[in-house]
Amino acid sequence: MAFTLTVLGSNSAIPTIKRFASAHVLNIHERFFLIDCSEGTQIRLRTEGVKFMHLNHVFISHLHGDHFFGLFGLLSTFSLLGRKQALNIYADARLKPMLDAVLYMHEIAYEIVFNPLNFKEPQVILDSNTFSVTSFPLKHRLPCCGFLFKEKPKQVNIRKDAIVKYNLNVKEIVSIKNGSDLVLESGEIIPNSELTIPGQTPVSYAYCSDTQYLESIIPILKDVDLLYHEATFTAKDEKLAKSTGHSTAEQAAKIAKAANVGKLIIGHFSSRYKNNDGMEAEARKVFENTFAVKDGDKFVIGK
Amino acid sequence: MAFTLTVLGSNSAIPTIKRFASAHVLNIHERFFLIDCSEGTQIRLRTEGVKFMHLNHVFISHLHGDHFFGLFGLLSTFSLLGRKQALNIYADARLKPMLDAVLYMHEIAYEIVFNPLNFKEPQVILDSNTFSVTSFPLKHRLPCCGFLFKEKPKQVNIRKDAIVKYNLNVKEIVSIKNGSDLVLESGEIIPNSELTIPGQTPVSYAYCSDTQYLESIIPILKDVDLLYHEATFTAKDEKLAKSTGHSTAEQAAKIAKAANVGKLIIGHFSSRYKNNDGMEAEARKVFENTFAVKDGDKFVIGK
Repeated sequence: MAFTLTVLGSNSAIPTIKRFASAHVLNIHERFFLIDCSEGTQIRLRTEGVKFMHLNHVFISHLHGDHFFGLFGLLSTFSLLGRKQALNIYADARLKPMLDAVLYMHEIAYEIVFNPLNFKEPQVILDSNTFSVTSFPLKHRLPCCGFLFKEKPKQVNIRKDAIVKYNLNVKEIVSIKNGSDLVLESGEIIPNSELTIPGQTPVSYAYCSDTQYLESIIPILKDVDLLYHEATFTAKDEKLAKSTGHSTAEQAAKIAKAANVGKLIIGHFSSRYKNNDGMEAEARKVFENTFAVKDGDKFVIGK
Repeated sequence: MAFTLTVLGSNSAIPTIKRFASAHVLNIHERFFLIDCSEGTQIRLRTEGVKFMHLNHVFISHLHGDHFFGLFGLLSTFSLLGRKQALNIYADARLKPMLDAVLYMHEIAYEIVFNPLNFKEPQVILDSNTFSVTSFPLKHRLPCCGFLFKEKPKQVNIRKDAIVKYNLNVKEIVSIKNGSDLVLESGEIIPNSELTIPGQTPVSYAYCSDTQYLESIIPILKDVDLLYHEATFTAKDEKLAKSTGHSTAEQAAKIAKAANVGKLIIGHFSSRYKNNDGMEAEARKVFENTFAVKDGDKFVIGK
């Protein structure tokens, strides 16, 4: 099962003509997960061809407008399109009264399930049989969480030649899939490893925005396949980064390196820089496999 | 003095890739007036090259999201750009607690002057020495106002040849500009009309969205140079128009004709129609000088 991440918006606080502010959408086998929802996200979703009705979970990192001002329009549009199924929102509890205050004239006809985030410690906030989502605290000017999307280890597959060779029935196949060896009538034992092929390696994606340099998140990010880490500033503006609760490209790369991630993508760029080539170059000195994203970039994680 | 109107968004409730929802900006001699503010308006303003700091007045017709969801981002961006001057907002009084609820974490450093609209009768809401803005009630599912922007009659100009011929001094010029005749030393009276050229004809623009067909607005719209009237539906969907508090293209044209306006522009189109050619043709049967607008259209009113 592949994860596909699409960057909907890559700019920091103020959207521009070319870059919307923060929003990512993660496709886990045609289930879509929206991570942050800046102004215009519903338009970006349309541009990227994401079907609105496949979107049932929205994760909001924190309550600065460039991460959630698109939510009002998206929820209203869902309603106008006749949405019936519930929508899960994971956010600071203080978002709920904002939604109530703004949307009370909009006849929202579907259920909104509001899941307040825990800003004190990591917490599993969504747990299915195939994947989980864990929130974890970041360090910003407002309470802020990152999100880790992680597939569960996949069941082994039975070798087709073993099914033929040992004439396996359904009961035996289920038993072997669950890890048992096969005991033949002769008493001979065929070990599980000879009967099975390992399942695909589970994949993972982590989203870290907004945050200043924060080493406490390294164990949570350990070995993730794809890490998005904000990089609002370059290293020469490190003091400004710290005082505003943000990171430099170099700091994002340090986190990626320490956590041994597969690939690092950086975004949430300050409009003060003419382009982001410097960001990418700066990060690559520390962690080679880094990419500075732009709106519309797609990353396939796993096979 | 020319008015220039720019259509920032022309779609109804749901924005699309090609059309944002309702927002217009009126340039009165480099003073900019924003009328409605749908999601993404700050991006549209940038695309059209409107300088944010020249924008001091925002008029919100009513509290459906497609007319104001862009306000949160715009106000936040103003603050991030270091705005100091006050911003005037003219809207339903219930907008204020919404802004307070959403923006309280955003350190808005400039003054927001909130002007509640009167939904019972027309009211002058802004009055300068050169123009006025009048709100007037429309008929929609929520309390809703239209807005009339009207230049004041312009002072006459003194004929240059009269200044030379009668050797007019400053006191005489001021007196003639204010309407006096000239009394020569001989006792002869030169009538004001022989000494002056009329000032340019004052121009006007009216914005009517959202509303069902409403004849009571005709006297207010009498002789306006440019009228924007919503036309969400075509005539075959007239019942739907009425039940949802909207107008058809034909109805917009009837209003334009009865009010003897100079030009009619229609917008706020429902996404149910593949294009708006039918709208324009339908309206032109009643009122020839009609244009179905798209995002980015500009109209210069006056010279």
